[in-house]
Amino acid sequence: MADYKEYTDTSDREVDILIRGGTTLTLRAEEEIIEDSVIAIKGNRIAALGKGERLRRLFKENEFIDARGCVIMPGLVNAHTHAAMVCFRGLADDLPLMDWLNKYIFPAESKNVDKELVYFGTLLACAEMIKSGTTAFCDGYFFEGEAFQAVRETGMRGVLAQGIIDFPTPDVKDPDRNLQVAEDFLEAHSGSSLISPALFCHATYTCSSETLRRVKELTSRYNTPYLIHLSESESEVKDVMEKCGKTPVHYLRELDILDNNLIAGHCVCLTEDEMDLLAQYGVKVAHNPESNMKLASGVAPIPELLSRGVSVGLGTDGCASNNNLDMFQEMDTAAKLHKVSRGDPTVMNAREVVEMATIGSAGVLGLDHKVGTLETGKKADLIIIDMNKPHLTPLYNIFSHLVYAVNGADVTTVIINGKLVMKDRILLTIDEEKVIGEVRRIGLRIKKNLDYN
Amino acid sequence: MADYKEYTDTSDREVDILIRGGTTLTLRAEEEIIEDSVIAIKGNRIAALGKGERLRRLFKENEFIDARGCVIMPGLVNAHTHAAMVCFRGLADDLPLMDWLNKYIFPAESKNVDKELVYFGTLLACAEMIKSGTTAFCDGYFFEGEAFQAVRETGMRGVLAQGIIDFPTPDVKDPDRNLQVAEDFLEAHSGSSLISPALFCHATYTCSSETLRRVKELTSRYNTPYLIHLSESESEVKDVMEKCGKTPVHYLRELDILDNNLIAGHCVCLTEDEMDLLAQYGVKVAHNPESNMKLASGVAPIPELLSRGVSVGLGTDGCASNNNLDMFQEMDTAAKLHKVSRGDPTVMNAREVVEMATIGSAGVLGLDHKVGTLETGKKADLIIIDMNKPHLTPLYNIFSHLVYAVNGADVTTVIINGKLVMKDRILLTIDEEKVIGEVRRIGLRIKKNLDYN
Repeated sequence: MADYKEYTDTSDREVDILIRGGTTLTLRAEEEIIEDSVIAIKGNRIAALGKGERLRRLFKENEFIDARGCVIMPGLVNAHTHAAMVCFRGLADDLPLMDWLNKYIFPAESKNVDKELVYFGTLLACAEMIKSGTTAFCDGYFFEGEAFQAVRETGMRGVLAQGIIDFPTPDVKDPDRNLQVAEDFLEAHSGSSLISPALFCHATYTCSSETLRRVKELTSRYNTPYLIHLSESESEVKDVMEKCGKTPVHYLRELDILDNNLIAGHCVCLTEDEMDLLAQYGVKVAHNPESNMKLASGVAPIPELLSRGVSVGLGTDGCASNNNLDMFQEMDTAAKLHKVSRGDPTVMNAREVVEMATIGSAGVLGLDHKVGTLETGKKADLIIIDMNKPHLTPLYNIFSHLVYAVNGADVTTVIINGKLVMKDRILLTIDEEKVIGEVRRIGLRIKKNLDYN
Repeated sequence: MADYKEYTDTSDREVDILIRGGTTLTLRAEEEIIEDSVIAIKGNRIAALGKGERLRRLFKENEFIDARGCVIMPGLVNAHTHAAMVCFRGLADDLPLMDWLNKYIFPAESKNVDKELVYFGTLLACAEMIKSGTTAFCDGYFFEGEAFQAVRETGMRGVLAQGIIDFPTPDVKDPDRNLQVAEDFLEAHSGSSLISPALFCHATYTCSSETLRRVKELTSRYNTPYLIHLSESESEVKDVMEKCGKTPVHYLRELDILDNNLIAGHCVCLTEDEMDLLAQYGVKVAHNPESNMKLASGVAPIPELLSRGVSVGLGTDGCASNNNLDMFQEMDTAAKLHKVSRGDPTVMNAREVVEMATIGSAGVLGLDHKVGTLETGKKADLIIIDMNKPHLTPLYNIFSHLVYAVNGADVTTVIINGKLVMKDRILLTIDEEKVIGEVRRIGLRIKKNLDYN
């Protein structure tokens, strides 16, 4: 609770943004929910957080936001996506993972992915994410320098990882150059306050042990996250077993890659023993239930990982396998999937799921000291949701509504790092019409390439 | 395709509404998708459906709708809900079915459900349904006469069933009067062109065999649908087995209740033999995947039912167990749930799911001759979806987008029985603010009753 005594210095009372009214879900241990709230933002930080008109009157603001009838909460953090893949949204559905990858996605990527596609695709993804309440995300794709440029323009926060795979890719025709391109990417993109560069080895079945190990040397040297798809499907586990005589997690341990810099996407097919290893080494896990459902990969043992203290975040995966980036829908699915898959409606309750999509994902990205809860001194990454809707009436429990009833389109206003990036559903850092037009044009090109195939 | 020769009589050319541009998904076998479409509506019917400026110029309309950049499709049909239960949305979550029912929902209903709650709750549900693209629904609840009144005011289409259960209910304190109340309801509500009255026995475990049988006599005499919750959970099957020595479907067969007037909700726990019976007797099934997931009831064998030729529709169930009425989200979940539960990403493809939520559900409600596809002569129940959104860009496959990317908030305009009920997201038959206010007030009363418990 903001203490009035803190603001004796009048210079502290001049703030950039003041949000007044509504109910704030802080997600702190204490004062988790503040009614009739006041949030003052100065620079990129939350300067004050409390309630009531007396607190409000301490401040003089440049911009006032009336949040009566709204819920204010930490921005959602998407722990695993491939943003530019929005360009392939709906191109191929209802197919098995390996067919989908090898017959559709990899060929389509090989023919179409270029700098322009990654730049505009990432911009479109950011537009979609902001419009559905996501303020930070963890990305892995090709031409990630272009993604970096796009994300910087939008003002979003994130971990952006250059993709590495041991066959010719759109941006690295000669796989022998992978490591050099990766290092160049890290060199070129250090030092942004909002975006951390990282590396993303596609998977244990598409990268050699040497590549996996050398990427580890790089991420250790640059102290950046190491992303990978891990144990996503039974066929992956089978492949790795056949190739190395070990399951994927044991294989990565042998390569000395398991540690708290590793962000492992999916983790669907894990043995008890592997779950213990992930916990022991502090590996972070990104859970993508909708993608795992759509590709029929299975159900990740998330309650078991959480009970072992593993840091788990929620992600949407890329738009070729979901096919949207709406984290509210992902929360709904996460809550329901684990209930039905284990026949227990009490698992993954609404509160756990909201935490997973905010402070949980922030922890996976290494950003939980900066964002993921609302508290004085933390970076101001927050979203405002209009609750004055038929489908959000009445309101007994905020957690329940956030998971089971709200969808992305209910978000009206988004602030990232103290800066308004959407107000009343108007994007302020992205020319939405232009970006939609550019991605439509790229889509026509992709379709033409398919037709000529 | 509209034939120009059909319109030689100029009086046929004066139409009420003309929708021009965009892509129409007719869901007919032929000309399933019409680009650059023209839809003329006269009275409550589709008078013409085709493409191009030449066709458009034949007509003179009272109201013009510019649908460029949009998809026009049949309105969604919610095959199973309890509309007024929006008043209990989020009151109790993350609980087992029987605890949820017996400790929370039944007591809350007993204390709070009255005419006012059903009237305003149903109005709010209709607002939510129209705003997410649903044009017809199948409802079962108490005080269904009030629901009838509310639905009539909104202009929605539906089957509305008076709820029957063998213990004192909010509207029938003495269960011995159930049958009389049911018959009075059917007598009082015959003859609406948009709404059919029906009866809803809650379940085999809450209604005696005598009640179940006597309701069958009534529905046969009045030729109205007979709704029931059937084989929703293992505990229900176990209860019925213990009580009658038979599984629920066999029990209903013994009571002569299985026929094509029966609309069975859920049907989660079925043996092969029971599926054969449902097919043999033409029983209609309402599939509610999100509710079944949330209550951990299980996964209904929908592909098996469809392969037997059973008529299956999609529903949301009531808002106490979902917790929304958005059929687009329900489609997304339906497609993904069956894939993951059987490890086969090819089942329940996007096209099948769209059909289930439109013509499939219409068949369950006995309305497939009137609505569920767009064709000349059918009733004009249709929705218009704005595709000019980041999350719907690019567009390769309409079915894919409708299932995996669109959500209810993308619907801009809704026409039911030839009448505009929403335009540009403004409801035209419901005072949205007033209804939200009334249900909030009712919610406060419900909460107060809880606090004093």
